[in-house]
Amino acid sequence: MMTERVAVIGAGPSGLAQLRAFQSAKSKGKEIPEIVCFEKQQNWGGLWNYSWRTGLDQFGEPVHWGMYRYLWSNGPKEGLEFADYSFEEHFGKPIASYPPRAVLFDYIEGRVQKAGVRDWIRFNSTVRRVGYDDAGGKFTVLVHDNEKDRDYSEQFDYVVVASGHFSTPNVPEFEGFNTFNGRILHAHDFRDALEFKDQDILIIGTSYSAEDIGSQCWKYGCRSVTVSHRTAPMGYKWPDNWKEVPLLQKVEKNTATFIDGSTAEVQAIILCTGYLHYFPFMDEELRLKTNNRLYPVNLYNGVVWTGNPKLFYLGMQDQWYTFNMFDAQAWYARDLMLGRLNVPDQDEMESDIEKWREEEDNIADDYGAIEYQGRYTRHLMDMTDYPPFNIEASNRAFFEWKKHKKQNIMTFRDNGYVSPLTGNRAPAHHTSWVDALDDS
Amino acid sequence: MMTERVAVIGAGPSGLAQLRAFQSAKSKGKEIPEIVCFEKQQNWGGLWNYSWRTGLDQFGEPVHWGMYRYLWSNGPKEGLEFADYSFEEHFGKPIASYPPRAVLFDYIEGRVQKAGVRDWIRFNSTVRRVGYDDAGGKFTVLVHDNEKDRDYSEQFDYVVVASGHFSTPNVPEFEGFNTFNGRILHAHDFRDALEFKDQDILIIGTSYSAEDIGSQCWKYGCRSVTVSHRTAPMGYKWPDNWKEVPLLQKVEKNTATFIDGSTAEVQAIILCTGYLHYFPFMDEELRLKTNNRLYPVNLYNGVVWTGNPKLFYLGMQDQWYTFNMFDAQAWYARDLMLGRLNVPDQDEMESDIEKWREEEDNIADDYGAIEYQGRYTRHLMDMTDYPPFNIEASNRAFFEWKKHKKQNIMTFRDNGYVSPLTGNRAPAHHTSWVDALDDS
Repeated sequence: MMTERVAVIGAGPSGLAQLRAFQSAKSKGKEIPEIVCFEKQQNWGGLWNYSWRTGLDQFGEPVHWGMYRYLWSNGPKEGLEFADYSFEEHFGKPIASYPPRAVLFDYIEGRVQKAGVRDWIRFNSTVRRVGYDDAGGKFTVLVHDNEKDRDYSEQFDYVVVASGHFSTPNVPEFEGFNTFNGRILHAHDFRDALEFKDQDILIIGTSYSAEDIGSQCWKYGCRSVTVSHRTAPMGYKWPDNWKEVPLLQKVEKNTATFIDGSTAEVQAIILCTGYLHYFPFMDEELRLKTNNRLYPVNLYNGVVWTGNPKLFYLGMQDQWYTFNMFDAQAWYARDLMLGRLNVPDQDEMESDIEKWREEEDNIADDYGAIEYQGRYTRHLMDMTDYPPFNIEASNRAFFEWKKHKKQNIMTFRDNGYVSPLTGNRAPAHHTSWVDALDDS
Repeated sequence: MMTERVAVIGAGPSGLAQLRAFQSAKSKGKEIPEIVCFEKQQNWGGLWNYSWRTGLDQFGEPVHWGMYRYLWSNGPKEGLEFADYSFEEHFGKPIASYPPRAVLFDYIEGRVQKAGVRDWIRFNSTVRRVGYDDAGGKFTVLVHDNEKDRDYSEQFDYVVVASGHFSTPNVPEFEGFNTFNGRILHAHDFRDALEFKDQDILIIGTSYSAEDIGSQCWKYGCRSVTVSHRTAPMGYKWPDNWKEVPLLQKVEKNTATFIDGSTAEVQAIILCTGYLHYFPFMDEELRLKTNNRLYPVNLYNGVVWTGNPKLFYLGMQDQWYTFNMFDAQAWYARDLMLGRLNVPDQDEMESDIEKWREEEDNIADDYGAIEYQGRYTRHLMDMTDYPPFNIEASNRAFFEWKKHKKQNIMTFRDNGYVSPLTGNRAPAHHTSWVDALDDS
């Protein structure tokens, strides 16, 4: 019998989770399929790479990453710790709860370096098209070698889509944008807050990008921050030169007018308006189409494409849990591919999805959402040999994080939480976030 | 017999030339194939559209245009006038030689509105893939409907690639870019010079984008312009706050160091480093791969794909001539598709291409290049019923343009030239470019 082949699309946290899951089984003596991971970037780590590039990259392909300089994790690391590789194991000591980007990149990389899976990855390789042939029962993956500008196709028994959903910006237009005398950018293209020093900036949106990019610009010396919301203000205790206003109505040159008639003079507009789930490389009948929610359609156990259970999507949920949830998903997908687990028929899968979605629709608040996603993650973990970890401890870290943000949005990162793995409480970072101006 | 079908990719100046060419034949009583033009933007006009958008558009597709506010043509309109539709016919009177973007857009649109070909265009339609089936002798075109996020395929007898080569930026990296404390952008993403008011800007490159974006920033009040060249300075008589320096060696925070050891403090870096010919949607064996030159490889008469003469590329040359050359190409491609003309076998086509390329390699200077492209355009025109126009008059306009730029790079647009169609000399614009601060 021919060795089966698995294509993994993307070598970010979710794709790497899939590689680690297979390598873990192999290290325990299990025979595994051939794994080929296609990564369009030059390195692994997905969004956790940093580069000055925006728009199209040196090969003409859309830039994947949207992280910026000076970025620190905006959630506690105790909510995302790999259950098979603690922060203490990687760093040799407990570290602070909100690591800078480079520190988290190092941690992500540490696990897969130890696992020795880099050879499974083809870098500079953009997947152009994935199709499925019913007759042959195989996927055909059309790949573009970015460096050689060459295409080639290969066949696979399974495909795992792990390309993320924070790379295709959702970019709305407002009246008068074509008359604005300054830069209009999406958060995806934000790189260095110092660009906006001494400027009055307008931010559209109220989610993580809005609060963190606004805070960055404030910290690095912008003159004022105005944040425009569609439904409700964020409501944190902002500094004096920060205000929240209703939705933007129009722009005329440098004057922004909001729907309550108030105005602001601004020199830059940053659209913190989220991202699209966009998989243009998937054939129509294999393509996930969803908004950003805890339980997307058509994915059994949040992972298995019900229309073809040899296809998997990792990490496509709206996320409280991240790395550890991707792991739970990857271990589960692995065990399906290894034949250790099975899925029911399509109807049963769809009705199971409906149950989860109904439950999601009844979630009362963010705390409920965190618990829901914790339950979902445990549900997956319970089916595989992914090391069980203390979900309640992770939930608690998330709860405290939210409380600390409410207390003070500029100092919440000074707090430390208890690791769900080691039980140790994190020390404080050597410098408070608000005073730390470099990335060290 | 089934009606033949032609796919035209792109509804910019070259794609519209193809539509107009067929409509012209039809208006003279000739039976023509079914024409379907796929345009990924919401409107025709290609690069001549303006929008504040950069990076990815509202559908997640790369933004096509790279024009900026306040842009005026950087070459004389007498070099690009449609031979079948003079500026005087469109505007009812002679107009100035360097029209603002919106004026040229109006002119481009005027001809095809008159021709009534808008119904042949499917807007918001991105071509994902073009393949050719030898057995069936047809092209399959896979199209993405951007608005519906749906894919579909159709078959065609001929394909005309008219998607341009000024949309995929060539974006080099220099040491230290990741440490720069300001915006780094490619000319493709430049929109409003007022963003750079009171800033010291560094421009990399010496071609049209460099001279015009630098001039824009200077005109709209940047503090200084530093232009870094790889081979030679542009050598125009620049204003006092403008200097030309050797190649950039590295950047450290806001300090740029050049290979002669000199330095400059800058707040923004604009890469005017050109574009890539990039056709990722074409199957490998149909894909043009060329640098930017007057006579690319594999295109017989600069148009016919020698590997499959039912495939055409329009406007893929390095360009002095533009709209009128695209017309000459489109009329020629049309007559091949209508069976009025034929091509020789592949070897003969390739050796003809070699002759043109050898001649190109022996061109002494820009004046020689202009004459060469004029000869090439006439060579095509002579084979079809495209209205013959006075190539020498166009050449003369280009020559005078170059002379006037050398005399004064900031006032060359005050000059007017003689139309190759009407013989009338263009009047001056109502305001000198250097004093005209709005787009009217």
